[in-house]
Amino acid sequence: MAVSDSDDLLKSALARVQDEVDRAFDAYLPVPSDSRARLVEAMRHATIGGGKRVRPLLVVAVADLYRVDRSAAVAAGCAVEAIHSYSLIHDDLPCMDDDELRHGKPTVHRAFDEATAVLAGDALHALAFDILTQSDVSSDPFVRSELVSVLARASGHEGMAGGQMMDMAADEEDYDLHQVTRLQQLKTGALLGASVEMGAILGRVPPEGRAHLRAYARDIGLAFQIADDLLDVEGDEALAGKALRKDGEQGKATFVTLMGAEKAREQARALVDQAIGHVAGHGSDARLLEALARFVIERDR
Amino acid sequence: MAVSDSDDLLKSALARVQDEVDRAFDAYLPVPSDSRARLVEAMRHATIGGGKRVRPLLVVAVADLYRVDRSAAVAAGCAVEAIHSYSLIHDDLPCMDDDELRHGKPTVHRAFDEATAVLAGDALHALAFDILTQSDVSSDPFVRSELVSVLARASGHEGMAGGQMMDMAADEEDYDLHQVTRLQQLKTGALLGASVEMGAILGRVPPEGRAHLRAYARDIGLAFQIADDLLDVEGDEALAGKALRKDGEQGKATFVTLMGAEKAREQARALVDQAIGHVAGHGSDARLLEALARFVIERDR
Repeated sequence: MAVSDSDDLLKSALARVQDEVDRAFDAYLPVPSDSRARLVEAMRHATIGGGKRVRPLLVVAVADLYRVDRSAAVAAGCAVEAIHSYSLIHDDLPCMDDDELRHGKPTVHRAFDEATAVLAGDALHALAFDILTQSDVSSDPFVRSELVSVLARASGHEGMAGGQMMDMAADEEDYDLHQVTRLQQLKTGALLGASVEMGAILGRVPPEGRAHLRAYARDIGLAFQIADDLLDVEGDEALAGKALRKDGEQGKATFVTLMGAEKAREQARALVDQAIGHVAGHGSDARLLEALARFVIERDR
Repeated sequence: MAVSDSDDLLKSALARVQDEVDRAFDAYLPVPSDSRARLVEAMRHATIGGGKRVRPLLVVAVADLYRVDRSAAVAAGCAVEAIHSYSLIHDDLPCMDDDELRHGKPTVHRAFDEATAVLAGDALHALAFDILTQSDVSSDPFVRSELVSVLARASGHEGMAGGQMMDMAADEEDYDLHQVTRLQQLKTGALLGASVEMGAILGRVPPEGRAHLRAYARDIGLAFQIADDLLDVEGDEALAGKALRKDGEQGKATFVTLMGAEKAREQARALVDQAIGHVAGHGSDARLLEALARFVIERDR
């Protein structure tokens, strides 16, 4: 497939998922007429009209391999995105990264206030599991329970939250490449891995049949993070829609500080090739996953 | 049953559940050897060796009505307690209630730091749903999915988090008795209601068979909150293990400010009698639920 076809395929797939996810959150989050309105407005601010929607696209793209009903895959994708969104709200808080800008908009604690931001994150966290146990995700309770299990494990202390803790300790710990890799596998990789697993669970693929998808997710997860570290050094803040140059200011070990920019770029490319290899067995069905793998290192935001 | 027998029954039931919950969290939360240790220590600080464990006892007491396996009920009780604990960590944050003391110990952001407290709350939130999807809770995925659904709904923006938002707006909103009741039904009542529902779900009681248990939970939830408001005015800080007299200082509408202490006390007693009436059909099996209903208005902390 020519690169421009791959580009078009990805662009239209992203645009479609972005639209579907926006509509779904709009439906999940009607604004109540009492004083909870502020909470729901904050949840909407964080979830509607922002973000690349890479995780929902991963769920949908993998589910597509197994001909899963589209609306079920979008719902599961929204659950992952709700978790991703809550983690961004909390990471942006003054006591964490203290960021003012996210997806080109004020962060939730800036647009509302800190207490509302904490609560909006918590409520989105609960919403994720609420979504996954609705029957429109799957009529099979085993599938629903498996989806919850994978997402809860990936986001908790043995996954994303654990990675965030390692990241917070990075200033004092002087991590080596092995530790930075482990940190990123937890902080970013766990949720990307959960996204592909959830697509496969919807497709009723047993755990042993998901190994190649997990390997794909692991590779694009690391490539994604290397690209993020490169973006932090070389990117354009206006395009990125968030503050950059933060790692350097904080003297943090990243793939770029540990490997150098050129070697990091090579490594990211190698990981993408490897990721594409893992899904090659799906033939032309895997075109979207291939395009997505290339996208993670070519994006400018 | 004489009051002293009822007292003994409750005391021994609480002591047993407290011990079981402590042991369970100790097993759920082994401290890792990397820099995630601080996160897990904070989660342990919040969950082990503190709290009355009213919610796990509710799950266990209702599950007992239907002869549910004890360890399954304790696990489900721990899931509710994990949600309760995360909400206390986040409520205690400087940007929320800014409390220094909880269960007679420093709050998590005091014993650790704010960022760790935010993360520890988030990780306990995820742990709750992780616990509920393990097969030791139930071998039936339908039961697991229902447990997740009830708990997620009760803790999100339509439940506990929504109630907390209403509570935060209370300073400006000048609530009447109807609105304070609604606020408390969400903030405290939703999770108590979820506890009894989860006991019934484990007992395979269909939704229409849970109405009397929901009514029981609604009544003790309001009685519990009235008692809390009375405790805030009349209680002993050392016994309570937390700061009191906060509602008055903030000029907040509570059951006590709206009804007066004497009328509030009467109302709490009437609610407890009503709650006991709802479970009378279970005969002597409901002794523990009766004792628990009496306890919520007689406690000093």
